[in-house]
Amino acid sequence: MTEPPEGYLGAGARIRRGPAPELVEAGYQLELADAPLLQRGFGLADLAHAIVLGERGAIPAADLRALLGALLDLLEEDVAVDGAYGDLANLRERLLTQRIGSAAGWLNAGRPRREAGRIAFRLALRSRVVELVAAVARFADGLVALAARERDTLFPDYTYAQVAQPTTAGHWSLSFAYPALRDVERLRRDFAWVDRSPGGAGGVNGSRFPLDRARVAELLGFAEVATHTRDAIWQTDGLCDLVSHAAIAATGASRFAEDLELYCTDEFGLLRIGDELCRASALMPQKRNPYALAVLRGGAGTLIGRSAGVLATQRTPSGRTDNLLYAYGEVSGAVELAARLLRLAAACAGSVTVDARRAAQRVRDGFALATDVAEAISLSTGRDYRSAYDAVGRAVAEGRLDAVALGIDASALDPAAALAARTVPGGAAPEPMDAMIGECRAAVTEALRWTEVTRAARGRAEDQLVELARSGSRSSVS
Amino acid sequence: MTEPPEGYLGAGARIRRGPAPELVEAGYQLELADAPLLQRGFGLADLAHAIVLGERGAIPAADLRALLGALLDLLEEDVAVDGAYGDLANLRERLLTQRIGSAAGWLNAGRPRREAGRIAFRLALRSRVVELVAAVARFADGLVALAARERDTLFPDYTYAQVAQPTTAGHWSLSFAYPALRDVERLRRDFAWVDRSPGGAGGVNGSRFPLDRARVAELLGFAEVATHTRDAIWQTDGLCDLVSHAAIAATGASRFAEDLELYCTDEFGLLRIGDELCRASALMPQKRNPYALAVLRGGAGTLIGRSAGVLATQRTPSGRTDNLLYAYGEVSGAVELAARLLRLAAACAGSVTVDARRAAQRVRDGFALATDVAEAISLSTGRDYRSAYDAVGRAVAEGRLDAVALGIDASALDPAAALAARTVPGGAAPEPMDAMIGECRAAVTEALRWTEVTRAARGRAEDQLVELARSGSRSSVS
Amino acid sequence: MTEPPEGYLGAGARIRRGPAPELVEAGYQLELADAPLLQRGFGLADLAHAIVLGERGAIPAADLRALLGALLDLLEEDVAVDGAYGDLANLRERLLTQRIGSAAGWLNAGRPRREAGRIAFRLALRSRVVELVAAVARFADGLVALAARERDTLFPDYTYAQVAQPTTAGHWSLSFAYPALRDVERLRRDFAWVDRSPGGAGGVNGSRFPLDRARVAELLGFAEVATHTRDAIWQTDGLCDLVSHAAIAATGASRFAEDLELYCTDEFGLLRIGDELCRASALMPQKRNPYALAVLRGGAGTLIGRSAGVLATQRTPSGRTDNLLYAYGEVSGAVELAARLLRLAAACAGSVTVDARRAAQRVRDGFALATDVAEAISLSTGRDYRSAYDAVGRAVAEGRLDAVALGIDASALDPAAALAARTVPGGAAPEPMDAMIGECRAAVTEALRWTEVTRAARGRAEDQLVELARSGSRSSVS
Amino acid sequence: MTEPPEGYLGAGARIRRGPAPELVEAGYQLELADAPLLQRGFGLADLAHAIVLGERGAIPAADLRALLGALLDLLEEDVAVDGAYGDLANLRERLLTQRIGSAAGWLNAGRPRREAGRIAFRLALRSRVVELVAAVARFADGLVALAARERDTLFPDYTYAQVAQPTTAGHWSLSFAYPALRDVERLRRDFAWVDRSPGGAGGVNGSRFPLDRARVAELLGFAEVATHTRDAIWQTDGLCDLVSHAAIAATGASRFAEDLELYCTDEFGLLRIGDELCRASALMPQKRNPYALAVLRGGAGTLIGRSAGVLATQRTPSGRTDNLLYAYGEVSGAVELAARLLRLAAACAGSVTVDARRAAQRVRDGFALATDVAEAISLSTGRDYRSAYDAVGRAVAEGRLDAVALGIDASALDPAAALAARTVPGGAAPEPMDAMIGECRAAVTEALRWTEVTRAARGRAEDQLVELARSGSRSSVS
Repeated sequence: MTEPPEGYLGAGARIRRGPAPELVEAGYQLELADAPLLQRGFGLADLAHAIVLGERGAIPAADLRALLGALLDLLEEDVAVDGAYGDLANLRERLLTQRIGSAAGWLNAGRPRREAGRIAFRLALRSRVVELVAAVARFADGLVALAARERDTLFPDYTYAQVAQPTTAGHWSLSFAYPALRDVERLRRDFAWVDRSPGGAGGVNGSRFPLDRARVAELLGFAEVATHTRDAIWQTDGLCDLVSHAAIAATGASRFAEDLELYCTDEFGLLRIGDELCRASALMPQKRNPYALAVLRGGAGTLIGRSAGVLATQRTPSGRTDNLLYAYGEVSGAVELAARLLRLAAACAGSVTVDARRAAQRVRDGFALATDVAEAISLSTGRDYRSAYDAVGRAVAEGRLDAVALGIDASALDPAAALAARTVPGGAAPEPMDAMIGECRAAVTEALRWTEVTRAARGRAEDQLVELARSGSRSSVS
Repeated sequence: MTEPPEGYLGAGARIRRGPAPELVEAGYQLELADAPLLQRGFGLADLAHAIVLGERGAIPAADLRALLGALLDLLEEDVAVDGAYGDLANLRERLLTQRIGSAAGWLNAGRPRREAGRIAFRLALRSRVVELVAAVARFADGLVALAARERDTLFPDYTYAQVAQPTTAGHWSLSFAYPALRDVERLRRDFAWVDRSPGGAGGVNGSRFPLDRARVAELLGFAEVATHTRDAIWQTDGLCDLVSHAAIAATGASRFAEDLELYCTDEFGLLRIGDELCRASALMPQKRNPYALAVLRGGAGTLIGRSAGVLATQRTPSGRTDNLLYAYGEVSGAVELAARLLRLAAACAGSVTVDARRAAQRVRDGFALATDVAEAISLSTGRDYRSAYDAVGRAVAEGRLDAVALGIDASALDPAAALAARTVPGGAAPEPMDAMIGECRAAVTEALRWTEVTRAARGRAEDQLVELARSGSRSSVS
Repeated sequence: MTEPPEGYLGAGARIRRGPAPELVEAGYQLELADAPLLQRGFGLADLAHAIVLGERGAIPAADLRALLGALLDLLEEDVAVDGAYGDLANLRERLLTQRIGSAAGWLNAGRPRREAGRIAFRLALRSRVVELVAAVARFADGLVALAARERDTLFPDYTYAQVAQPTTAGHWSLSFAYPALRDVERLRRDFAWVDRSPGGAGGVNGSRFPLDRARVAELLGFAEVATHTRDAIWQTDGLCDLVSHAAIAATGASRFAEDLELYCTDEFGLLRIGDELCRASALMPQKRNPYALAVLRGGAGTLIGRSAGVLATQRTPSGRTDNLLYAYGEVSGAVELAARLLRLAAACAGSVTVDARRAAQRVRDGFALATDVAEAISLSTGRDYRSAYDAVGRAVAEGRLDAVALGIDASALDPAAALAARTVPGGAAPEPMDAMIGECRAAVTEALRWTEVTRAARGRAEDQLVELARSGSRSSVS
Repeated sequence: MTEPPEGYLGAGARIRRGPAPELVEAGYQLELADAPLLQRGFGLADLAHAIVLGERGAIPAADLRALLGALLDLLEEDVAVDGAYGDLANLRERLLTQRIGSAAGWLNAGRPRREAGRIAFRLALRSRVVELVAAVARFADGLVALAARERDTLFPDYTYAQVAQPTTAGHWSLSFAYPALRDVERLRRDFAWVDRSPGGAGGVNGSRFPLDRARVAELLGFAEVATHTRDAIWQTDGLCDLVSHAAIAATGASRFAEDLELYCTDEFGLLRIGDELCRASALMPQKRNPYALAVLRGGAGTLIGRSAGVLATQRTPSGRTDNLLYAYGEVSGAVELAARLLRLAAACAGSVTVDARRAAQRVRDGFALATDVAEAISLSTGRDYRSAYDAVGRAVAEGRLDAVALGIDASALDPAAALAARTVPGGAAPEPMDAMIGECRAAVTEALRWTEVTRAARGRAEDQLVELARSGSRSSVS
């Protein structure tokens, strides 16, 4: 029988051996890979737990002082991670015990290993979701700015990659901003899910120790307590939602990138992105490869898989650990990847320039006004639309749209007149465009303000907790 | 050159051949498979379009009367679907033209084929999402009722499928109700996304015809207009969300089913579901197979794939049809499958009975109180928790927990006393349980009320639209 | 207690109620939706089981005759499917019992309900996989024919949708044929997995009845017996593989479609697909929408989800039914969808025409020869490649590649000379192209021959089985 | 305009700016994260390219000597990775140019950046796939050894987690070995796909430089050349297959883990895994949590997502980089994760012990022999099976199976007799078991031998290449 490494087990009531190397490799090292993500949050969770037990008189004064002091020290250190000694909770307990002896044993009072992990995970996610919201809002901001710059720039709308009708570059750009702003809303709701404290839940449904869930939540700066204790500890629906929303946001950016890739070809020549988003070829001297767009597209595909994986992992009974074991790294990684992608998409949006001459030419050459002409015929003659359509269809087949031949006013062939008529809400005429640009700008501003307020509140809560712990670690009386 | 079938093409300006059999098989038949889903919605969308154009004077009075009459007739018919003539829009136009000639040609005025499809899809989804919300709410209702019935029934809580701590069957049941109620919230937000009208958008950004987006939305009973016209027609983020939420809800039901499967084994013997949810074996006379639970588990896995597929399909440029071509069937099918699964899960929850004797015995035999004993030692002696844990660990290793030997009060070994101490918010003691049951009941009631109100409003809007059309089809003056 | 419908249960030893409506809706109707797929296979499996038991003397002669006769009758009928009476096995047993009484009871001898289902499923898959192989082979065939037609047609190769180097349309086309031929190989291996008989396995590991696994396999025309009985009945790895391969094949077709969509735009103007694969717009008279390509792309995305779903469903314990309950419909549906897509892709490949003039112009305008020029400089001067590249890069930046100025032979600017130099194996020069075209043609021919042989063998086996049953049903002596 | 960092661009013909920070963060750092994976392979690919160009006289002798020497030096170094200078190819070229000036420029002769990457990726995958094959073979080995140890140990077979029929622990164990051995076959075919050289392909279809594809393949120890040059560089079907197979193998291990989790509960008590695969709880002194099983289950779910993500990313046009940009890390990571999981699964299989007494008792208490009894009745009386089944069903309902009352021989109730009758191929009787154990052992042995041979061959090829380069770097004459 292999002796367990010192500190790996507690009393070892029912387990008497150290971990198999295969378990260290596949299990503990997997968990420890998340240590950089979780380490500080573990420290904060431990501080809050100790403070609450201290406030409610469950820990002797001297033990409390020693514990808080040791935890504060640990907060500034990187714990050397070695899977042979177990996971992060094991390693931290081992270090604390070496430093302050049995006083370290209070950390497990009324609290399973997983609770500190859940809290640390939510703290880490809170930051990451805020950064993702900021990145999506910046992407929307870039799109809205582009829409404002090109509000009146004639542009061909495509369906099936075939010229459809006249539009403006601004209207096209805004069609990506609206989904991005819905992404912001979704992610803020995800934040609200994350921002609930599972702390003070006991093993499953409370404890004989005098826990105080509201106080733990307050100390850690959570907006509220996740009510049902078992649900609070094991719930994963919000994680599935979060990764799915990261994938949806990245897919929106990927869709924008696919349009850019097409419109930036020499053949289309409608748009151009900056040199700083392209790369040269090592072999072909004439190349200017829009590398950023490939990064966006591949990233979206990768995130779609992350979303499927997190969801597939949730098909499991309750209370089984496998449903959350991988989630820490997978979900955090997905949110971070999405944030990097959205920042890149924002850079792309910011760098887009339009070739207005080419765009106008494509509107003309692509018979984009054919529909307007048919509409003009129908409107001026009272003939049904299908009959007018057929007449125009024949003209297009002959290769030319001629106002006189078709018996209509020349303005029917004027793209500017066409756009001026697009006055329905959400349309391309200046008035609905201005209304939409204003609406989107307000939403972007509000989202960015929220990210700043939220970051600041988080920092303040953390400072206060550390300050409280510091004062507790120095107090001469409990 | 194959002659196109009569009515397949309009003027055939640029296309002069009928569809290849491979395209009929893979394309039009795929679309027509959704005809039962979309047919009525197409009819309503056409009525609303015609009425609005009529109200704004764009259609001559006689044409309008003929058109409304023919559309009303068609509303009551099942259009025979034959892919050789194209999709549902083609087939409907063909029938209308056969019946009322060129007056049918007004339907395409200011409106591409896809707009009626989008509206019909949203109308169909509206109903389906309401039914899914109702099914999830009923599932939550069954869980809450079970929780109320078994509020005080001692039950072992398991982690890793190993006995952990004492709980109640009611607390365990409620841990599935909370996620289900979050599913309800999510799905109602999805409903709000669905309940926006894309109508009156023109081809991409308006039209020269006098469209009226607000009036179209009102006639079809939509809560609001989806603002940006291009976004309104092509957006899919809400569909990804909806399928993902259907999968999350089904995964919650599957998790409940996995617990049931375990607890209903003869070996665990803690629970029992009704005969009406089981099936016999054709070979083995002694079997009582919990078939419903397999249906729930496999269904969740299937829906996870649907969610991945809808998302994968969205990685595409804008305005390309492929992103919505399959969505009609896939998303509707997923929502319907989820509703069937949740109704089955509700039936399972409703049929659960608890073997309280076996449950209490497992609490005892599984040393579920070991943690409480260690807590009692720590609380009564002031020793740190880890030390107390070690002492109890040794006692468990010897196979018995003895209050006297451990120097604690006998109540530490009383499960009822343990549960009575679980008074934290969300805990298993009667007070927090009653609070949670009340909160959940209120949420269920409000959700079910919403489904009724929403169904009724939908019916009313449809009746009014048909009535308006009927009066328009009869009016002697435009 | 609800009375079970007549015939739903056997002795009802442990189940005394009919199925709940929720179970009928979510379970039995789900299974019965597969009835068209499985019905004939069930009949054949039942015939083979009865014949083997008869041959080995386990069924009395009169019972055997009655049973075979009734099974043959049933083989020609569509069983009316009503979920209230259970699944297909239940319904068949019910019908047989009504017709021949207790002789029907022999069908369950040594055989659980699931065995006939597994056999029927494999028989159905066998046909579908053969059709998918045929479709992929036809797609490869179309690509190879295109490659042969356009073996020498100068064409720009693109990376990042930017012109890279000169190639031929034939070389580009062949780059899709190779993956398709690997799809054929993969699918034929999947067929080999499918073509193993799970028959005669008993409930789990044999039976007291004198089963004969080899004889069952022979009667049903399977190539071999799936050895381990429990594995034979429950294995799903081949199904995951099959759906994944259907998705990979469809993704290959989708990739081809994405290239076509780009090259068929007016802006690129390099290729054209047939009118019979396009559709008109109802609104825009000038449109010619490549509808087939959208069908291909969306289909691939949908199949990616099917693959994820089947795999996600397999994360389950052994022997649990949920892992195969949905597979029948999901896997068969996926293989069929893939076959439809590949047939459409073959039609696309067959219809492609190349605009050689535009292609040659793009090679020139896109500076596709820049690399060749740099190579020529390096080869003729002995300067390292990067230096030559830099010189050419500067020339491109100035907008012109001039042989004299760069001090090279004019042939460096001749695309034909460039292509003639591509003589490495797999390259674009005529010799390697001819070698590859020959290799691919041979592979296509062999694949199509295999599909014919396999279809014929399957038909023969089925005829023989029915003939044997017919003779058994008539024989006066057992 | 931001100055590009020194060495980032070549001549910068069409790009004149350094990369945006967002591109460095999302693009280059993503690529550089794979540097540890690819670095050595890049070095080997560069050596082979230089040697072949040297052998065919394309590089001047002095340049060749300098280049080989510098490449050999670099082979032993870790290139410090800094995304501001681009990807690994950029960084290597920069270092080489600093050291040997323009001689470094030969590395790009006839070769785009991506070719070295593709080669390095395949070299890295080769090793990883071999290790995964070894891990799966060891898992199968452990299962076969368990099957041999427990060949005759009576065990209940479960379906729906309900006792079905008698089996042996050995037969149950072998039912996981067969799928694992099919995983081995699949992965070896994937290896064959990986083991083809894309080298010497030129930019897309050859080059004016005298490339030699067979020689490059030989130098790098590839089994063969991937024929079609464009396919060779861009193909991804084998990667999709590989990740899918990694997921399937992990799902097989997860299924085994799910069975273990159930059978290792105190309630079932049939099996036990070693302490070294479990962990203690920090809170609950009595717990013995089978942590390894949670690692296996969650790992399978995670890999299912990886598979979906790689496939989703492939839905893209040809020649677009996004389809391979993420694949390097995703596919390698998936294969490595699967190998870790399979090694853990092997450790689990190796540690399983069976509680034969409990198992026998469950067979008895679970009426596992009910089917055998019904079979005995049918066989001895000639009554059809359903009638016998009904009789036994009634007996079970009364709670006892009594041979006398049922009028059968007592041996019908003897599990050993039942098992002895399971003599069909693949059955549980000793003869078919021995045959299967022998067959599986041979397959395991052959698989492990292959991994050793393959590892050795790979090492030899690499040594020879380095030796050849060393001699080239020293040679006084070219």
